[in-house]
Amino acid sequence: MKDLKDYVRSIPDFPKKGIMFRDISTLLNDGEGFHQAVDDMCDKVKDIDFEVIAGAEARGFIFAAAMAYKLNKSLVLIRKNGKLPSNVISQDYELEYGVGRLEILTDICKPGSKVLIVDDLLATGGTTKAITQLVEKVGGTVAGISVLVELVDLKGRDKLTEYPVFSSITFEGE
Amino acid sequence: MKDLKDYVRSIPDFPKKGIMFRDISTLLNDGEGFHQAVDDMCDKVKDIDFEVIAGAEARGFIFAAAMAYKLNKSLVLIRKNGKLPSNVISQDYELEYGVGRLEILTDICKPGSKVLIVDDLLATGGTTKAITQLVEKVGGTVAGISVLVELVDLKGRDKLTEYPVFSSITFEGE
Repeated sequence: MKDLKDYVRSIPDFPKKGIMFRDISTLLNDGEGFHQAVDDMCDKVKDIDFEVIAGAEARGFIFAAAMAYKLNKSLVLIRKNGKLPSNVISQDYELEYGVGRLEILTDICKPGSKVLIVDDLLATGGTTKAITQLVEKVGGTVAGISVLVELVDLKGRDKLTEYPVFSSITFEGE
Repeated sequence: MKDLKDYVRSIPDFPKKGIMFRDISTLLNDGEGFHQAVDDMCDKVKDIDFEVIAGAEARGFIFAAAMAYKLNKSLVLIRKNGKLPSNVISQDYELEYGVGRLEILTDICKPGSKVLIVDDLLATGGTTKAITQLVEKVGGTVAGISVLVELVDLKGRDKLTEYPVFSSITFEGE
């Protein structure tokens, strides 16, 4: 079995000069690589008790959906500003390169639900922190955080010390 | 087994007055509903020969990813303008309410690949048509189109007569 990291392609200066973009297109484009990634993410959370997976737009949807399908969990979408219909709660946050606003439907995550947050990437942790805040604002409990790729140097975990955080691929000092 | 359509919630006047938004949040939020939807979409394409699934940002990623996982296919992302790194090909299109531009990586879909296009919704067919054009521009062959929800009155199929089109839920005259 190939190392998951070997499926990821690194592209310098995207989306801005000085940023090394870890491109998972090559992992997704390999049926075996994608399958292995989803299985590994599921395996890492096997001792976590949760019934809902929250996935963040847009690449987070990919892993959240595949994991929800495999594990028979329900799926809640964390979307960018203005995409969700009816009543939403929003949360602003700082990105590695910009600012953003995320939203969740107020009525979609039952109070007391145990929620696993799934995303493709943990960088500075700003986005992930905002997602934990949204889940908690609608009454959910964050059971854990599962990401495919963690950029260790950006210390995202330091913003998330109250939750178990799992990653399948790490980049550090490179 | 519940009818898949019963999992969808209808919200009037979103994102614009006069548009009836078919909200799949309630389907996704039901582990059984989501599982059943993915299984049904996979079942409908079982006689189609393809090795790649192309999923369109953002909700298309959800079904494309779950189907790619279940069927062991590779996954290619069709993204909105400016999200993909390195060399892209783009395609402009008209939306039901606005205009958009979609992109695909030039090097990610091998020439001659047989591609199943997956999306959550077939409305006027503008977006789906643009996706078929992108796949063909990079040398892929569109083997079929699979959507969760089809809004029959908007006649999207009329723009896609050269491809087999499958939908799991239809709304018509309502």
